[in-house]
Amino acid sequence: MSNTFFQKDIVSVRDFDREKFEEVFKATDKVIEMNPNERRELARGKTLGYLFFEPSTRTRLSFEAAMASLGGTSIGIADASSSSAKKGESLADTVRIMSLYSDVVVLRHQLDGSSRFAAEVSERPLINAGSGTEEHPTQAILDLYTIRKEKGRIDGLKIGIVGDLKYGRTVYSLLYALGNYRANVRLISPPSLKVRSDSTYEIRKKLAYTEATDLEENLTDLDVVYVTRIQKERFADMEEYVKVKGSYKLGPELLKKMKDDVIIMHPLPRLDEISHKLDSTPNAKYFNQAKYGKDARAALLALVLNEKGI
Amino acid sequence: MSNTFFQKDIVSVRDFDREKFEEVFKATDKVIEMNPNERRELARGKTLGYLFFEPSTRTRLSFEAAMASLGGTSIGIADASSSSAKKGESLADTVRIMSLYSDVVVLRHQLDGSSRFAAEVSERPLINAGSGTEEHPTQAILDLYTIRKEKGRIDGLKIGIVGDLKYGRTVYSLLYALGNYRANVRLISPPSLKVRSDSTYEIRKKLAYTEATDLEENLTDLDVVYVTRIQKERFADMEEYVKVKGSYKLGPELLKKMKDDVIIMHPLPRLDEISHKLDSTPNAKYFNQAKYGKDARAALLALVLNEKGI
Amino acid sequence: MSNTFFQKDIVSVRDFDREKFEEVFKATDKVIEMNPNERRELARGKTLGYLFFEPSTRTRLSFEAAMASLGGTSIGIADASSSSAKKGESLADTVRIMSLYSDVVVLRHQLDGSSRFAAEVSERPLINAGSGTEEHPTQAILDLYTIRKEKGRIDGLKIGIVGDLKYGRTVYSLLYALGNYRANVRLISPPSLKVRSDSTYEIRKKLAYTEATDLEENLTDLDVVYVTRIQKERFADMEEYVKVKGSYKLGPELLKKMKDDVIIMHPLPRLDEISHKLDSTPNAKYFNQAKYGKDARAALLALVLNEKGI
Repeated sequence: MSNTFFQKDIVSVRDFDREKFEEVFKATDKVIEMNPNERRELARGKTLGYLFFEPSTRTRLSFEAAMASLGGTSIGIADASSSSAKKGESLADTVRIMSLYSDVVVLRHQLDGSSRFAAEVSERPLINAGSGTEEHPTQAILDLYTIRKEKGRIDGLKIGIVGDLKYGRTVYSLLYALGNYRANVRLISPPSLKVRSDSTYEIRKKLAYTEATDLEENLTDLDVVYVTRIQKERFADMEEYVKVKGSYKLGPELLKKMKDDVIIMHPLPRLDEISHKLDSTPNAKYFNQAKYGKDARAALLALVLNEKGI
Repeated sequence: MSNTFFQKDIVSVRDFDREKFEEVFKATDKVIEMNPNERRELARGKTLGYLFFEPSTRTRLSFEAAMASLGGTSIGIADASSSSAKKGESLADTVRIMSLYSDVVVLRHQLDGSSRFAAEVSERPLINAGSGTEEHPTQAILDLYTIRKEKGRIDGLKIGIVGDLKYGRTVYSLLYALGNYRANVRLISPPSLKVRSDSTYEIRKKLAYTEATDLEENLTDLDVVYVTRIQKERFADMEEYVKVKGSYKLGPELLKKMKDDVIIMHPLPRLDEISHKLDSTPNAKYFNQAKYGKDARAALLALVLNEKGI
Repeated sequence: MSNTFFQKDIVSVRDFDREKFEEVFKATDKVIEMNPNERRELARGKTLGYLFFEPSTRTRLSFEAAMASLGGTSIGIADASSSSAKKGESLADTVRIMSLYSDVVVLRHQLDGSSRFAAEVSERPLINAGSGTEEHPTQAILDLYTIRKEKGRIDGLKIGIVGDLKYGRTVYSLLYALGNYRANVRLISPPSLKVRSDSTYEIRKKLAYTEATDLEENLTDLDVVYVTRIQKERFADMEEYVKVKGSYKLGPELLKKMKDDVIIMHPLPRLDEISHKLDSTPNAKYFNQAKYGKDARAALLALVLNEKGI
């Protein structure tokens, strides 16, 4: 019997139910515990082809490291928008040809729907490494995995998501994913950076959440704080930016007001929204998160490439 | 006894006779049929070093995928003209050093003769991945292989080559290669984009061909249609460009007028000279061509690296 | 008992004593003599993560080739200053995350001290591939290895270092390294390109050297001539540049005045400070030097990654 993900595309977190998440989480647990020699059999002789139309060094390296840990090879285009596409080639042709050169295709693209479309033309399974404004399924998987691994569960937790919730597909993917769990979600952001109203209807179908503005007042009871970067270029008014930025910054003072066993997460890269002083505290889990990211992606690749799973 | 290509340079399609082509074609057949584990022994622990002075994502990835499928590793410079060369290093030094780091060197360079010259200084076999205006031997090999594979033979076929025949080394390489077969070649292009007159003498030594201007009138009896991209930047007069471009476009209407078993090829990337509507027809072979390209390059690398051949 | 370098950072040539150099030299001898299959076990399944904040194709490829020859994989950022750093990420975060994805981190950075700092935050051993104005330990190792290999020893040799001694970390690393041997060092450069006075105190603690200006007069008794590139952009006065450049150029005429068994070295890339006419002489060792560079780096990686050494 073949595993659920064998030779399947990973396009949207909205295609996942709780059972699917658990399947990947268990595979990730296994991949982490595995003997390296055994692990290297999972993609031995296989090739991952990546196409990044938006550069994203972090995600690319995470996939490359994952593939290498499975014994496979990665080839690809780190800045696809400046290569074949420059010659005017269609996304369909670029994806299709990459799928002739590799066993699994990893695509990052700025347009909504690009990944779904690409999966249709690809001759090999396609994994969405971020598309449009909402979809980044492997990030959502690694985010949930980190919570589960560090807190032992996701259900029943109080989870705060902090910062810029308007832009950045990471937040949307996470919210859609959390809809499969009974988590207590609080969104904490400046009014101008709240979740986009055209997405709330869809999110609320599965996830009840509350919204708040003041960070300090809303941190004390949280089990998980997920911080995101507030980007300067989102603000027309620089004074507003400086004010907002200053008030969504996590440092030692705020940490003292939080639960002893709170975990702090961040998709990275961070600027100064989390003080480096927190890095050495047991609450800081953002580097673990990056490490689990590599393993969760390895697990996913292994499931997609191996009929019997891991 | 060692195979013909062992430790030899692949510089020009003009160094190939029919026997040599057949040797690579047979090796390609074998590589395709081979068990992946066996295939991965052919370059196990070997390193391919690539130097692309002209960027060419497609060709680079094809070589990298080929090398990976043989169990080898690729390292290199995807945009060599903006790296060492920027520091003023000579081509000779760049090639020579790359040849100290690898087992086979793959070079793409804009100058005629660059590849021949580079082969002389390289301490390892050098494969020309496109040089100057005429040479792209591995493209010619994969083009012929595709015809042979899809039509069962090359001799006796009616082959039309369509579009911009003036610029683009692909066409010249293909014409020199076809000179080794008894094919019936028709060149179909606007008058301003005919094969360069300074090359015709050399080509005609081995290949008889006819020339035509009207696409529609010249398609009905062809067994193979090889389409190339017409590039905007070649025209001083935009009106002329639009006119020409429109009349060298293959779509469903023209396909109806062609032989049922005609095969349509294209070196890719394509713009709109072949309608996407043809992609799903059994006549469209340009994606197969790309796939065979990877395998033909793998076969060539395997021959160059293994004394006993494949 | 574990080898001296196992899981250790390689940050500065100043951390090396004679014994350490000899340990790497012996390992390099072994790596060169080794059966390729055996050699490929030394980093099997291991990943090298490189971060080049200053582009350096040569050094990067040398490390990648070295890693491949040990059976390992390389991933990384060839131009780190234009990727994550562009998003404002700190060096500490970039290095730390790379260290979560790989087994050894290779860093090139323009700032003095960057490598020492990065080694502290890295969770895996970090190898300095050039930092600031003075440090390039793996270059110094391969330079000394080349002398030892080609001349049989380092002690007692007359070594001339020629050209731009003011800029270029290669020269400083080499001088610090030579301080561990009883070599007779002569620095030959135009007055404006002498070793920086703020470094001479430190260098002179371990190394006695003399300085000279005229190349021709100072070559006749040398056993080793180490030539460096004189860069145009260092000169405010173009006339001065042309004069200086012309007089620090090694050609057949000067070679005749040198010892028969003198060896000529260069860290490469070279411009015209060594005539191509010397390339085929037995004295020219700069290509060997590049080749040994790959092997010396492979040896170092093998020592860092394998407890028992090689």
